[in-house]
Amino acid sequence: MNYGVILAGGVGSRFWPFSRELEPKQFLQVAGKGSLLQSTIIRMKEVMPAQNIYIITNQAYLTELLKQVKHFSLPEKNIILEPEGKNTAPAIALCARLIQQRDKDAVLIVLPSDHYIKDIKKFCFALQQAVICAKKGFLVTLGITPKNPSTGYGYIKVSLQPSAFSRQLNSYKVEKFLEKPSLIKAKKYFKDKRFFWNSGMFIWKASVFMDEVKLYLPQLYRQIMLIKDTGDIIKVWHKISPMSVDYGIMEHSGKIVLVPAGFDWTDLGSWDALNEVLTKDAKGNIVQADSIDLDSRGICIFSRGNRLISTIGLKDLIIADTPDALLICDRSRAQEVKKVVDQLKLSKRKEHFVHLTEKRQWGHYTVLKQAGGFKIKIIEIEPKKSLSLQRHKKRAEHWVVVSGTARVTSPSGVRLVESNQSVYIPRNAKHRLENPKNSPLKIVEVQTGSYLEEDDIERFKG
Amino acid sequence: MNYGVILAGGVGSRFWPFSRELEPKQFLQVAGKGSLLQSTIIRMKEVMPAQNIYIITNQAYLTELLKQVKHFSLPEKNIILEPEGKNTAPAIALCARLIQQRDKDAVLIVLPSDHYIKDIKKFCFALQQAVICAKKGFLVTLGITPKNPSTGYGYIKVSLQPSAFSRQLNSYKVEKFLEKPSLIKAKKYFKDKRFFWNSGMFIWKASVFMDEVKLYLPQLYRQIMLIKDTGDIIKVWHKISPMSVDYGIMEHSGKIVLVPAGFDWTDLGSWDALNEVLTKDAKGNIVQADSIDLDSRGICIFSRGNRLISTIGLKDLIIADTPDALLICDRSRAQEVKKVVDQLKLSKRKEHFVHLTEKRQWGHYTVLKQAGGFKIKIIEIEPKKSLSLQRHKKRAEHWVVVSGTARVTSPSGVRLVESNQSVYIPRNAKHRLENPKNSPLKIVEVQTGSYLEEDDIERFKG
Repeated sequence: MNYGVILAGGVGSRFWPFSRELEPKQFLQVAGKGSLLQSTIIRMKEVMPAQNIYIITNQAYLTELLKQVKHFSLPEKNIILEPEGKNTAPAIALCARLIQQRDKDAVLIVLPSDHYIKDIKKFCFALQQAVICAKKGFLVTLGITPKNPSTGYGYIKVSLQPSAFSRQLNSYKVEKFLEKPSLIKAKKYFKDKRFFWNSGMFIWKASVFMDEVKLYLPQLYRQIMLIKDTGDIIKVWHKISPMSVDYGIMEHSGKIVLVPAGFDWTDLGSWDALNEVLTKDAKGNIVQADSIDLDSRGICIFSRGNRLISTIGLKDLIIADTPDALLICDRSRAQEVKKVVDQLKLSKRKEHFVHLTEKRQWGHYTVLKQAGGFKIKIIEIEPKKSLSLQRHKKRAEHWVVVSGTARVTSPSGVRLVESNQSVYIPRNAKHRLENPKNSPLKIVEVQTGSYLEEDDIERFKG
Repeated sequence: MNYGVILAGGVGSRFWPFSRELEPKQFLQVAGKGSLLQSTIIRMKEVMPAQNIYIITNQAYLTELLKQVKHFSLPEKNIILEPEGKNTAPAIALCARLIQQRDKDAVLIVLPSDHYIKDIKKFCFALQQAVICAKKGFLVTLGITPKNPSTGYGYIKVSLQPSAFSRQLNSYKVEKFLEKPSLIKAKKYFKDKRFFWNSGMFIWKASVFMDEVKLYLPQLYRQIMLIKDTGDIIKVWHKISPMSVDYGIMEHSGKIVLVPAGFDWTDLGSWDALNEVLTKDAKGNIVQADSIDLDSRGICIFSRGNRLISTIGLKDLIIADTPDALLICDRSRAQEVKKVVDQLKLSKRKEHFVHLTEKRQWGHYTVLKQAGGFKIKIIEIEPKKSLSLQRHKKRAEHWVVVSGTARVTSPSGVRLVESNQSVYIPRNAKHRLENPKNSPLKIVEVQTGSYLEEDDIERFKG
């Protein structure tokens, strides 16, 4: 049987300020319908049933992931949570190990969750080819015929020497995995038919892959073999060293075969990649914002705010606007967005970490304003959801229900608060906010106090 | 006696999005201490007492103007209000007429309110020269020696033929006023010592100027002569045709003399002008914002929001950010900001008209959010100020005092509301909000209702 392994643990910091550490790229809708993760699931479902699709991600993303996969009827046990990111080799090995216990002959189709693929038929065809090779004991990678001498991708060099096998299946024996090249090398590779882009899509038997892990990453193998079920992950994971599958396995194994992808493919690795994928207007601009432009060319405007963005005489820029952070970047330097994120981390800011709108299991809230002694939030609670019973030592809260009905627990009891009614929660008062109805609840919260951070919270059971 | 006439009626739409129709350029602090208007008053006070300084502006700006001139002890009668803008000729003629009634030998020094002049001593010296010429019956204009072949200024051509008079006073007889030239012409002018930039600073006797108005704009003259005091303005003003003093008088009069300015001068006509005036960092950038930059050159970032602005690899751009509108503009095209403003007007938006923070006689308020059925404002009321007694038919208001003390009048009486207390004002309830204390009052207002626009208000006396 074929099994899907979707790698969804990355942060994708090159899509900052849309992506944040707590809201990574794969959960964003940047191209097409649905998020990048959802698009990947949809592709995967073309070649296997939902119960064969596994997703591995960071445990911090569980809430968001569950929301996003809700309509795909994936079994909950197929969601594998990493306590922390360890790069691709441990993640894939973990999934291989767990799937092998279910089906020792399992063939894995490993897909990153940040690809854009338009032609799903051709994609399925390439996978079928790859699966045939994989069943013969090869580690198969899908190779992309380079469209330009890109320095942004790793390359794979194959042998064009035909073998009986390759003639039959349109596949090549891989000679070498090569890291992102200089422009001079990239130009050489581009002219040479033996070079392909490394797509990061892999197809192999779980057993064959684990054999290679045993051979080339024996320590990882031992650690992974200690995991009998998902409950064991937490015991082992912190000891595992990060390692990419390219560096740890693919650059060493002699069993690798490349199947040309044969479909249009874009790695949505940075803002610039969207320029290839999204529809442009007559001036060659991509505008997903409330915008007025005079004479700009080749610009991409993305907005998550509700501000008007006006542009005059610009050329080849990326503009990405959010309520708390704006990025304006020359298109040729989209890779360097990561450096801004690194600076934000170093200076202990929070714009790389969370959005002003933060998602929670029960809904989400947006901080509208924080100034001396007060903070204003809009809180939206999904139907039938509830916040924990809690208490704050340093702040009081004023709630105005602006839509829906709240059930409020406070020292004076439990009561329903309707739209256009308000409630006061004094400091130190135990309270709970619930949405008892089937429609969303929206409240405006005004906090007052000398300390207004999220960590002033004591949660109670029940 | 010398009298100052400061022209402060313009909108300055090229400084959008900082300038708005209700918050024009002259009231903004864009360079130096204080607003452009305040800097102009400070310069004027170097050459005359405050009681001789007149300001003419649109009556819509009265509240803001009074706040800005408060510390200069200008007599209130020196503030002349136009019911609507009619360009410079009517404005200057009106001031000349009113000042003449006070002093028939008055010499007027007419200054726009959007100039940046660093060396005030040289400025005063040039004015002294100009006043001597003006007293001899000339219309004097200060001419700027061109620093480059700018196409952004009008030019003045003088005769270099020396006369006894010009030798004595370093002044030239003006041959011609020329409109903004093409680049080819500008380059010719730039090489020729007979050409100066038209600064728009004029010095003349009120009587001489009015004689020229009578000669060249006889209809305007008759209309202005109907005005005996400021109370008459409203009766006449709507009949007056707009006319610039350059076009109406300066291009025709034979009495014009130019005094070279002899000081560094910048017309702050557009964002680009600030590039000449403000201090640059090591990379040649001007950054007045919370910003992270990688490798940009020659960019100017101005922020009135509190968003982080990150820039990568940009060159020669202007970025001006406000909570509801962002401008990104190639520096060479700063003049075209006006076109964006024109588009906003045409599409009946409001980003050209007001800021999210609106000023009022009693303080100001900021709209933080308006969504289905509710609106959130922060309202700041200055000490001892009060809003009108009022009533809303379609909305209720929830107030949370977050700093200071409010005196609230409502159907249940008058009471003091302290910080961290709240008040509910139902629909149709007459109410008033006051700040009875000597420190500022800040409240968060949550409005709820089906219609939340400012025009749902009924004001009461008392």
